[in-house]
Amino acid sequence: MPGMMIKELKAPLELTETELGELKPGYAKVSLKAAALNHRDYWITQGLYPGIELPKVLGSDGAGIVAEVGDSGDQPWVGKEVIINPGWDWGTSEATQSSEFTILGMPHNGTFATEILAPVEMLRERPKHLSWEEAAALPLAGVTAFRATMSQGQLRPGEKVLISGVGGGVATFALQFAVAAGAEVAVTSSSEAKIAAAKELGAVAGFNYREEGWQKNAAQSFGRPNLIIDSAAGKGYANLVELAAPGGRIVNYGATTGPPEKVDMFKLFWNQLKLIGSTMGSPADFRGMLDLVDRHQIKPVIDQVFSLAQANEALARMEKGEQFGKIVLRI
Amino acid sequence: MPGMMIKELKAPLELTETELGELKPGYAKVSLKAAALNHRDYWITQGLYPGIELPKVLGSDGAGIVAEVGDSGDQPWVGKEVIINPGWDWGTSEATQSSEFTILGMPHNGTFATEILAPVEMLRERPKHLSWEEAAALPLAGVTAFRATMSQGQLRPGEKVLISGVGGGVATFALQFAVAAGAEVAVTSSSEAKIAAAKELGAVAGFNYREEGWQKNAAQSFGRPNLIIDSAAGKGYANLVELAAPGGRIVNYGATTGPPEKVDMFKLFWNQLKLIGSTMGSPADFRGMLDLVDRHQIKPVIDQVFSLAQANEALARMEKGEQFGKIVLRI
Repeated sequence: MPGMMIKELKAPLELTETELGELKPGYAKVSLKAAALNHRDYWITQGLYPGIELPKVLGSDGAGIVAEVGDSGDQPWVGKEVIINPGWDWGTSEATQSSEFTILGMPHNGTFATEILAPVEMLRERPKHLSWEEAAALPLAGVTAFRATMSQGQLRPGEKVLISGVGGGVATFALQFAVAAGAEVAVTSSSEAKIAAAKELGAVAGFNYREEGWQKNAAQSFGRPNLIIDSAAGKGYANLVELAAPGGRIVNYGATTGPPEKVDMFKLFWNQLKLIGSTMGSPADFRGMLDLVDRHQIKPVIDQVFSLAQANEALARMEKGEQFGKIVLRI
Repeated sequence: MPGMMIKELKAPLELTETELGELKPGYAKVSLKAAALNHRDYWITQGLYPGIELPKVLGSDGAGIVAEVGDSGDQPWVGKEVIINPGWDWGTSEATQSSEFTILGMPHNGTFATEILAPVEMLRERPKHLSWEEAAALPLAGVTAFRATMSQGQLRPGEKVLISGVGGGVATFALQFAVAAGAEVAVTSSSEAKIAAAKELGAVAGFNYREEGWQKNAAQSFGRPNLIIDSAAGKGYANLVELAAPGGRIVNYGATTGPPEKVDMFKLFWNQLKLIGSTMGSPADFRGMLDLVDRHQIKPVIDQVFSLAQANEALARMEKGEQFGKIVLRI
């Protein structure tokens, strides 16, 4: 089976013929039609991720057709068009993942390949309104956005939501999910083009976070958000704490610009704020995400489609950070 | 009416004859039997509180007998033994107080006096198992501890709870409430005597936060807490973030040692933590607190009782920080 493998850090992936391995009971062999990139893939290539084992096939997101199911497995799955929940062994608590939790694509071989082995219980039928590329774009970023916005963020209809740094896969899904859930949504970006694209998806306002005092402008023209979804943290976090409405929640699913310089604890307790961490999601989050996508016929935003062999070009596009929506590999 | 008034900042309170004011409809005149101190009172004397107006009678906590009710008011209250909810004009949201919210004792005249005017709707019957001194010790610290632990902290039976800096009124109530609610509770303090006193109240473990690495010891011998109740923040906050169980909550009702130096955002999102602010409480929190106190026959811990005229000595004891439980004034 050919797959785009990471063989050493900070080097291009290599298209390599590799063994798929044994099809164990409870597992399915899926013929992949499309895969999608996540920042995680890029970070792994740079060695910026815990628990890297080499060589591996990269990739957390995939969609395809079930070719075969292991011995005692659920045979009706054979022939079905599926996406794969990339969050394996979450465990039994909704509050947090177990210590066995892993994300598809490291240390398991991932989706940048023509075939993959995955537990049958991680399969879900492909949403019927989505193309292969759209379906592959959904899993990791979709479940992360759903957990951040709904399960951890507890979004309620009619609330004001701010999505910071729109353009990335999770932020774009968070925007779409919040709009679908009946929120009034604003975004931030350093790119006017991304703000314009977010407005096409239903954002009612956009602010350039490079402009000094943007948060005061946002408070005045949009209002103070009940929920903020952020993955940057860093120096700009203080603006979010200042901007959040009393009783508001700030959910972080990442901290790409490092830890906040200082957190204003007086604002935290007097404004009754909640600063919430979130990552990936449980099987229940994954089902909830698919329900929401189905109910509102949400289509993932595709930034650009590459071939499997072009995975390095796809990673280079992600590194530049110019994308709006998901970068996809057609297999 | 004599009351202990603050006339200028950083000066002793003065026992002064002052006007009670007009008894308006919807208000009650309460003859006070006891009052209690809060850190807020001390901070006001030091000018470390927003919106100070002088001169005023200090004091947020009081218990007494309803002497009279204004014209269209609820006459059956006359003669009843009551405590006063010090959180006025909270508003309609459970998530946060309204912008009209005030705390009794500034800018309204407070409880360090023989009489007070209070809205009838802020009166609650004195818990029957409490003395006047115990009843007066309850309101502000009790509702703050209840909101932090139950409403914001969402404590569930069987969880592990850590109360940092035990000895203060709120921390001591939080300990009692968490024990009553079926949690396994540990405390921190720099005082072995306070740790011993906390164990008398049901704490199963205590750690001296001055000892380097105490949090590793706590993780090993007590386990990682699902809920941490803190009012210090500052440099020690990083230890709490490290110690919290995955999926855990850290609730701050204050930040007496300043903002945290850095918040480890990777731990925040990977461990799915919630950092929660909390202050005072809603009328529903106040009712919930009284229900809990009644159901479990909880008795506030009284550190020391002074006379009304000794309020400055009582404030001096609070400033030293040696108390365990509430400092009370008998009127």
